[in-house]
Amino acid sequence: MHSAQAKYAYVWRRRLSDAFSTLRTAIVGVSGYSGAELARLLLRHPRLQNTLPLFLGHYGTESRSVALTDIHPQLSGLPNADDAGVTGWNWNQLQREGVDLLFLATPHEQSREWVPEALARGLRVVDLSGAWRLRDETNRAVYKLHDADAALAATVQAEAVYGSPELHGPAIAKARLVANPGCYSTSIILALAPLLRANMVDLDCGIICDSKSGVSGAGKAPTPTTHFMNAADNLSAYAVFGHRHTGELLEQLQLTENQIQFTPHLLPIPRGILSTIYVRLADSGTTENIQACFDAFYAEAPLVRIRRSPALPQIQHVVRTNFCDIGFSLSPDGKRLVIVSCLDNLLKGAASQAVQNMNLMAGWHETEGLL
Amino acid sequence: MHSAQAKYAYVWRRRLSDAFSTLRTAIVGVSGYSGAELARLLLRHPRLQNTLPLFLGHYGTESRSVALTDIHPQLSGLPNADDAGVTGWNWNQLQREGVDLLFLATPHEQSREWVPEALARGLRVVDLSGAWRLRDETNRAVYKLHDADAALAATVQAEAVYGSPELHGPAIAKARLVANPGCYSTSIILALAPLLRANMVDLDCGIICDSKSGVSGAGKAPTPTTHFMNAADNLSAYAVFGHRHTGELLEQLQLTENQIQFTPHLLPIPRGILSTIYVRLADSGTTENIQACFDAFYAEAPLVRIRRSPALPQIQHVVRTNFCDIGFSLSPDGKRLVIVSCLDNLLKGAASQAVQNMNLMAGWHETEGLL
Amino acid sequence: MHSAQAKYAYVWRRRLSDAFSTLRTAIVGVSGYSGAELARLLLRHPRLQNTLPLFLGHYGTESRSVALTDIHPQLSGLPNADDAGVTGWNWNQLQREGVDLLFLATPHEQSREWVPEALARGLRVVDLSGAWRLRDETNRAVYKLHDADAALAATVQAEAVYGSPELHGPAIAKARLVANPGCYSTSIILALAPLLRANMVDLDCGIICDSKSGVSGAGKAPTPTTHFMNAADNLSAYAVFGHRHTGELLEQLQLTENQIQFTPHLLPIPRGILSTIYVRLADSGTTENIQACFDAFYAEAPLVRIRRSPALPQIQHVVRTNFCDIGFSLSPDGKRLVIVSCLDNLLKGAASQAVQNMNLMAGWHETEGLL
Amino acid sequence: MHSAQAKYAYVWRRRLSDAFSTLRTAIVGVSGYSGAELARLLLRHPRLQNTLPLFLGHYGTESRSVALTDIHPQLSGLPNADDAGVTGWNWNQLQREGVDLLFLATPHEQSREWVPEALARGLRVVDLSGAWRLRDETNRAVYKLHDADAALAATVQAEAVYGSPELHGPAIAKARLVANPGCYSTSIILALAPLLRANMVDLDCGIICDSKSGVSGAGKAPTPTTHFMNAADNLSAYAVFGHRHTGELLEQLQLTENQIQFTPHLLPIPRGILSTIYVRLADSGTTENIQACFDAFYAEAPLVRIRRSPALPQIQHVVRTNFCDIGFSLSPDGKRLVIVSCLDNLLKGAASQAVQNMNLMAGWHETEGLL
Repeated sequence: MHSAQAKYAYVWRRRLSDAFSTLRTAIVGVSGYSGAELARLLLRHPRLQNTLPLFLGHYGTESRSVALTDIHPQLSGLPNADDAGVTGWNWNQLQREGVDLLFLATPHEQSREWVPEALARGLRVVDLSGAWRLRDETNRAVYKLHDADAALAATVQAEAVYGSPELHGPAIAKARLVANPGCYSTSIILALAPLLRANMVDLDCGIICDSKSGVSGAGKAPTPTTHFMNAADNLSAYAVFGHRHTGELLEQLQLTENQIQFTPHLLPIPRGILSTIYVRLADSGTTENIQACFDAFYAEAPLVRIRRSPALPQIQHVVRTNFCDIGFSLSPDGKRLVIVSCLDNLLKGAASQAVQNMNLMAGWHETEGLL
Repeated sequence: MHSAQAKYAYVWRRRLSDAFSTLRTAIVGVSGYSGAELARLLLRHPRLQNTLPLFLGHYGTESRSVALTDIHPQLSGLPNADDAGVTGWNWNQLQREGVDLLFLATPHEQSREWVPEALARGLRVVDLSGAWRLRDETNRAVYKLHDADAALAATVQAEAVYGSPELHGPAIAKARLVANPGCYSTSIILALAPLLRANMVDLDCGIICDSKSGVSGAGKAPTPTTHFMNAADNLSAYAVFGHRHTGELLEQLQLTENQIQFTPHLLPIPRGILSTIYVRLADSGTTENIQACFDAFYAEAPLVRIRRSPALPQIQHVVRTNFCDIGFSLSPDGKRLVIVSCLDNLLKGAASQAVQNMNLMAGWHETEGLL
Repeated sequence: MHSAQAKYAYVWRRRLSDAFSTLRTAIVGVSGYSGAELARLLLRHPRLQNTLPLFLGHYGTESRSVALTDIHPQLSGLPNADDAGVTGWNWNQLQREGVDLLFLATPHEQSREWVPEALARGLRVVDLSGAWRLRDETNRAVYKLHDADAALAATVQAEAVYGSPELHGPAIAKARLVANPGCYSTSIILALAPLLRANMVDLDCGIICDSKSGVSGAGKAPTPTTHFMNAADNLSAYAVFGHRHTGELLEQLQLTENQIQFTPHLLPIPRGILSTIYVRLADSGTTENIQACFDAFYAEAPLVRIRRSPALPQIQHVVRTNFCDIGFSLSPDGKRLVIVSCLDNLLKGAASQAVQNMNLMAGWHETEGLL
Repeated sequence: MHSAQAKYAYVWRRRLSDAFSTLRTAIVGVSGYSGAELARLLLRHPRLQNTLPLFLGHYGTESRSVALTDIHPQLSGLPNADDAGVTGWNWNQLQREGVDLLFLATPHEQSREWVPEALARGLRVVDLSGAWRLRDETNRAVYKLHDADAALAATVQAEAVYGSPELHGPAIAKARLVANPGCYSTSIILALAPLLRANMVDLDCGIICDSKSGVSGAGKAPTPTTHFMNAADNLSAYAVFGHRHTGELLEQLQLTENQIQFTPHLLPIPRGILSTIYVRLADSGTTENIQACFDAFYAEAPLVRIRRSPALPQIQHVVRTNFCDIGFSLSPDGKRLVIVSCLDNLLKGAASQAVQNMNLMAGWHETEGLL
């Protein structure tokens, strides 16, 4: 692909040079959908223009580079993308290259294996898999993880911070290991945290979370599920009472299995999640006090947008943005609440939340490179 | 359009002639999506080959005919369709033509106005609008109906039978007026009736019905909602706590507003409804006794298919069929149940349910012309 | 799946019994998309109600049956479908079962291997693959076929009839082996044959065929191409100057490579083909004489519908029908013609054309079971 | 919508302040799809951060503002967007506000009426409609324009520059009136100009341009054509031999009607155009010399990307980018060429080409705000 535009990149770089940092980042697992979005965000991140990220493929020898835009043609034309390559890698190389922060967009088995080594070598890590999100062993069982050194894994797990910047900003800033949240979990946790922290929810009847996600959530591997003929013009529920993101809801919202129920569905669209959440209120509420509860909770959260009731979020309003949009509707008797929460599963549900976490870890404003 | 195939239609007709009836039907409002499906079903209905339906447009003079296949090109090639015309009409004409059974695929205001007249003239009616579905005046308020003769309307309302063949078969068979159910309502009522009638549901926490429908449910009128740019690659909730089908749930399932909650969503697909229904059980259940409850209730219901748990229905399995598919998943503790119910909103949710009702009214097997 | 409807099937069967034949059919390769449509058509074919088709899977032992509706849930509820099984098979079994006509919906290598054996055992064959469509060895090279017995293969090839009923009806009626046409080829050949046979085309500039097909044309195997994320919201050209259907155009329309050019594209829809065909006329034409040419050619062809110019076919008008729709637009100077041809690639482009061929081979009207 | 992010906008602004210009822009007709994209591009244009654009609605009184993000919710969260309003306007206001450059994203009748007035008042104009693209009166007839002052209109027309930066960069830089090209035209003209200027095309047989566009090209008005039910799962050709963009092809490529033919189709996707273009070469070519011809022509064109044969552009690779991608395939005999050209109809086909023109008019690099 022709890349005359590379000529002009220096203008952009120079213009921002006063803001440059020395943080060196690397992504392992750039070939998936979240990896592509993460590459896009890091390549144009204003603080990283002097220290462009490394893109890493298979572990082992430092193999010959494949062009990033051969794997992701849609990144072509983005400044610095056409020159970028994806290489084999090993730990010595990362240290030699001076990598400070490692993003793992890898299967959870790999993340579980690599994170202890990365921390031991002085790297900080943002892990996009589910490997380190869950403190409770029972919840974690669904991932079938096998730790070579169980004691070490327990120590690492103990220091992992769940990477929801709106809930754990200060802890993330100091963390060596950030476990980036699941996409469904993010849409639900952000919708429920304000009301739960304010003790406004009647938990006796349980909270119902009916979520719907686009096909990118099912991954890049060609399978019967992701075949166009099965996904298009269709809708299906799956993993009822058994989805892996359930544990995140229990732990982050401090609920029991009886108190929250989550059903995912596969939508015939490329990307976006909409969660419809059904809550009984402890006391009758008004639209005003619900609105005030959300507004106050997210007053300092630039990537969460609260819609004015009766307006509700739609998937189209968040796709290809870094926002989570939240709206609600209150029953006429003020006792039942429907919350609608939307985000782009590859962005606020994955890559842009990872960048938000990096920003906090580096001491920058959390929206750098995201607005 | 070339129609050499008309030549061969007689073979088909003759072959079935022993089964022909003398029932004469007419459809008012054939131009919409439900009307088109109804036309398709009646045109190929084995009992109606000698008495093809009349297709009626504007009320008033018996105006010049428009070709049915000019309005609905997709019907072309169907036996008898290319010769069919849609005409203006009036009551005298219907009587002169010997119409016995009138299908109204008209706005609810029109249906409310015309049904008393039709009954007075000795016609039986299947009304596909919401005009006559609700007995309770409060529930009906959402339709903003104005009756010229309130006493007459009350009498007619009192004899209207809700057209759910699985629930009210015998009453439908004798009815002069059948109020064909709403599409969302059908998917929910059929999913819940077995458990509710068996007193298996704990109603204290309320039932949650999260429904998703294709765009044909929003009608044929071009609006911002139905514009491709707004519907495609999107999902949105609407009419939260205020959808008109709610009253049908309350009346048919004998529940209060506190006991059931319904939220519709607009899916980016042409047709199909999937309802995800959340129920707490009065006592712990097993997969076997839930399955048995559904199987027993629908043992004689050929158009309801019960899936074997853990298999769940999908929209693709019911689109362009006359079935309602129902499946479920029980929580590990046996206390919470997720029911998934799917149908084609234009067929079992409208036109084919109307034909099923006609079959019962005529004394035929309910599946005639539907399998 | 519940199948109370099976009870009522006998009514349907008895009603039609006078028309039943003794022809026994079998399908090998029922698991693909064309196979599913073929199964649907044969199961409800009025002539085959006494001799329902065999559905055959792997060659070898007569293995235990898998339910047809487990492979194709969308067939469930169709009369006789829920009881049908797909079994392993071998040649002795076919003879013992009295199979007369074998449909091969198999890869071309398999069809090439099996057809000589089938003919030797007295079976007639409709082959849906490309194995036997091409007489010219050079054209056939694209399929990389290897014949164990080249002389036998040449003899079989010589008697194969290209299964376009509109062009070769009488030969098909007598054929032992019918090579069912490609989907793209059908849309193009039917659009061009009338004008070419009437010598109305100026071939010096070549005919351009720009075709677009839905994803089902790419087959059921999950691949990057058929992944929802790559197919949705996209359009791409492929196999430019190299698509395997080109040879059928050359042979059936008796053209050279310089005289016709074909470019396929992948559309983001499940099914349907639209071919836009650009022709220069030998002499200036009028809309009337072009229309007359098409009308005359297809006067006796019930499954080809000629639209009245300026109306043009659309994919929506043919999807899930057995028709090929053809329309055209003539340039103001009468010298250049754009022909638009549409069909459902799985029906008139595959399964329903195969049934049309079976009808002719059995001496029935070509539309039996197709209208 | 909550907009805490506004707080941080000043950081961004200050950082770039050295690059700010004093150019004041305004958009009339921001409510459509192209208008929304233009608003997005101008709001984040690095040179315009001190002089944010005016968004103008109805002509007349300077009416009360409507929030830009109420019209286009997807712009919310973009820096400066949530504070922006769309106001009524008049000519005096534009002068008082110091507007230098006016973008007209208005119907062609409006653009035809307003441009002479704008020029008379010293404004420069980029017009996105078809009003001023065509010099030849015969070609222009398709727009049915009525000029109040024909002589004035002729003068204005004479100085209008066709806004294809790759073809007319120097003239655009000096122009008072730039007629921004049509979306289809851009995809075709950029694909053909290199070969035509190099006299490599045999024009005797004519060039065939088979183009396919997403639904946004049909505009924001809800019509039967843009209804989801008609657009989804469909493909149709339209305006054969009569599309308004044809005149641009004739004038810009200096061809006669016999030498080029253009057929547009409506794709079931939101955005993107793919044109498949069929060319006969004057002399046999090689892949290398065709590639060299494109490469040389676009060596200095940063927004045109030439793919290496045999790779071909796809719509997914250009959607939401400012690029036009061009690729080709040469026939084995070297005489026939298929060129595939893709762009986003709302960006390189409309809004980003308009910004590219603004950049040239302002003396900035043509890619400012576009990479």
